[in-house]
Amino acid sequence: MAVLKVHGSPISTATQRVIAAINEKGLEYEFVHVNLAEGEHKREPFLSLNPFGQVPAFEDGDLKLFESRAITTHITRNYATSGTSLAPAINNPSVCVNWMQVENHQFEPVTSALTWELVFKPMFGMTTDAAVVEEKEAKLAKVLDVYEKRLSQSKYLGGDAFSLVDLHHLPNLQCLMGTPIKKLFESRPHVSAWSADILARPSWVKVLDMLKN
Amino acid sequence: MAVLKVHGSPISTATQRVIAAINEKGLEYEFVHVNLAEGEHKREPFLSLNPFGQVPAFEDGDLKLFESRAITTHITRNYATSGTSLAPAINNPSVCVNWMQVENHQFEPVTSALTWELVFKPMFGMTTDAAVVEEKEAKLAKVLDVYEKRLSQSKYLGGDAFSLVDLHHLPNLQCLMGTPIKKLFESRPHVSAWSADILARPSWVKVLDMLKN
Repeated sequence: MAVLKVHGSPISTATQRVIAAINEKGLEYEFVHVNLAEGEHKREPFLSLNPFGQVPAFEDGDLKLFESRAITTHITRNYATSGTSLAPAINNPSVCVNWMQVENHQFEPVTSALTWELVFKPMFGMTTDAAVVEEKEAKLAKVLDVYEKRLSQSKYLGGDAFSLVDLHHLPNLQCLMGTPIKKLFESRPHVSAWSADILARPSWVKVLDMLKN
Repeated sequence: MAVLKVHGSPISTATQRVIAAINEKGLEYEFVHVNLAEGEHKREPFLSLNPFGQVPAFEDGDLKLFESRAITTHITRNYATSGTSLAPAINNPSVCVNWMQVENHQFEPVTSALTWELVFKPMFGMTTDAAVVEEKEAKLAKVLDVYEKRLSQSKYLGGDAFSLVDLHHLPNLQCLMGTPIKKLFESRPHVSAWSADILARPSWVKVLDMLKN
């Protein structure tokens, strides 16, 4: 089996997404630390791995990928028999793809903005923009209303089993759990149960352990 | 074969994306017009088709989907033997998925913002925000620099054949061709050739004809 290499940073949510998928599959990998503070992601040799200059980048033998959700999809497909399946529910892959796109276009933009304002800006000594937080919080509430209904019909977003759809949410979800936005998740019973369930997965706890070290 | 139904509006870029894929496959479909000006997308019965209240929504028999790229993926997979393949290049599906995610996370956010400022705001009598245009234009230029390099290596973004990766770009690309942003595409030889090639596809010309009527 080819050696998997992840080039990234533990504080990068996209890097965390990839590691979570590798952990679910129980695969070995080499972690190549990219020093963001020194701008290593904006120059060679990293730019040859990801021309957009963002972490992570990924190698599986000769194959090079860089978009986090494309990497998790590759891992799911190419290591299908290892660990958790992670694949879309077999009876209805199109519905699962639909909810993967919901994460891409409804959850990710608003939670990334909130994470930036409430987690990373304070970390970098910058000032949170309260107006942006208010706007995005209102948007997230509407998204979570739809999630609440969906999760009252199936245990996970893609169907009855944990899959990539849920996994893709983990990094931003984790970040927001340390902010006042947490209440939006906790006030919705099905969202709250789903959130607690996926955040407790050993694959994710292992990512958090990596962050602590 | 089940009758395909597209609920949407011809001026919606996401609706156009779906129709382009159906046209590439040469499939029959029923178009159900959703009157956006009257807010039909924000109330029942439409909300039962898309709880986020956005067009399009799609039905294939009993299956209901609403994210445009999930619908095109479903059409590609479930009507594999009709019309153009549209599937990721068979030798390297993971690379194709990677570039589909590039469209999702690099091209779409910046071109949607530019389309809103330069096409839809003027259409609705609103004022274009020049600062936003300047910022997004600079970002798009960097994205297109990466595209230029990619397209010097393969004729299409996903590989040597036209695929969903390219198709997903069509609606925003078309909108920007009627704005000063056009120069960013035309000044890059490979991007310019790719853009002219995909905009001239009969499937897309048919979408434009629908818009004119």
